[in-house]
Amino acid sequence: MFITFEGIEGTGKTTQIKRLVKFLEESGHGVDVTLEPGGSRIGKELRKILLNMDSTDITGQCEFFLYLADRAQHVSQVIRPAIEADRIVISDRFADSTIVYQGYGRGLDPKLLRELNEVAVSGCWPDLTILLDIEPELGLKRATTRNLDENKIQEEGRFEAESIEFHSRVREGYLTWAALNNERIFVINADQTPDEIFSQIKDKVLEVIEKGKK
Amino acid sequence: MFITFEGIEGTGKTTQIKRLVKFLEESGHGVDVTLEPGGSRIGKELRKILLNMDSTDITGQCEFFLYLADRAQHVSQVIRPAIEADRIVISDRFADSTIVYQGYGRGLDPKLLRELNEVAVSGCWPDLTILLDIEPELGLKRATTRNLDENKIQEEGRFEAESIEFHSRVREGYLTWAALNNERIFVINADQTPDEIFSQIKDKVLEVIEKGKK
Repeated sequence: MFITFEGIEGTGKTTQIKRLVKFLEESGHGVDVTLEPGGSRIGKELRKILLNMDSTDITGQCEFFLYLADRAQHVSQVIRPAIEADRIVISDRFADSTIVYQGYGRGLDPKLLRELNEVAVSGCWPDLTILLDIEPELGLKRATTRNLDENKIQEEGRFEAESIEFHSRVREGYLTWAALNNERIFVINADQTPDEIFSQIKDKVLEVIEKGKK
Repeated sequence: MFITFEGIEGTGKTTQIKRLVKFLEESGHGVDVTLEPGGSRIGKELRKILLNMDSTDITGQCEFFLYLADRAQHVSQVIRPAIEADRIVISDRFADSTIVYQGYGRGLDPKLLRELNEVAVSGCWPDLTILLDIEPELGLKRATTRNLDENKIQEEGRFEAESIEFHSRVREGYLTWAALNNERIFVINADQTPDEIFSQIKDKVLEVIEKGKK
């Protein structure tokens, strides 16, 4: 089973992933947590390039191909082997991020993005995607506070530094894309308490696990 | 004007590029020399990943997307601006390398490779490509000697370390691809003296410059 988490910065993906892992492990499942960009050894080097504040000169197309490179390596080295070993794989961001950030956010051709994503994913689509949805103003405020705390602005702040218009396009893009893929993408309002959010995630994950058994 | 040099390792591309630059500059042209992978700032970081001997775990698809990322950045940051400033741009390897190494060499789908290459190149195809052709056994012997001299095996030796079968497929691939694109790709037997090779390059470049003036 393969579950991904999506959403703009500051929606609480990390917190919810930790809770889900704890819950699934306590229920007796083997769980692997991973992320994009940076889920493989080579991906970690690409993550540095992609998220670093110094990479302001990177073009939209170069960025897009780097995400696909990271994904192709991630799927073949990490995700597919774990699924084949009957682990539950949870990824913090995956293919939907590229469609939404580079497509809706940066305006690259959506048809091309989908086709190339298919190449990188090579059939390994998630069984369930949790989209945590929040107003960009609120999400960015949370993300900035967190990054200041963790001293991560310079290292991983390139997307947080984008304009509020960019994040609004991304948020709208996520909702549009979720509506087009509502059999897989489950939207949760992230402007609730962590307990309220987790309760909905847990119910949905259990439903998908049950469905998988049939 | 945009000229690229192609060929397996050890054909003498670097030597011939130096001679061509000297000749063109002495004839009064402004010339920029560049290379792939690594022609842009971000490309230099990708070059380290792509050519390092430690990158043995890289998948064919990840490698392919990294070359496209390098190329997209290279075209938009380096090649196109130089051409627009009326410089003659000479690149040591370009889009044909991807078709030949990843397609003929690694067996990735040639149709897909061509389409994605078009995206990365975005219309900026060379006016002339010089293909230096040599027996793989001879080329690799030259490349290995050079790399040992320059202590480059660990840093940039990943392709030299491929089997002779791989390099034979690449060499055949280059010749097939050149035949399909004979209006642009000019093949020269590289098992000749540097003077003999350069004389043919010079004649061809002058012919293409003349044609461009008309």
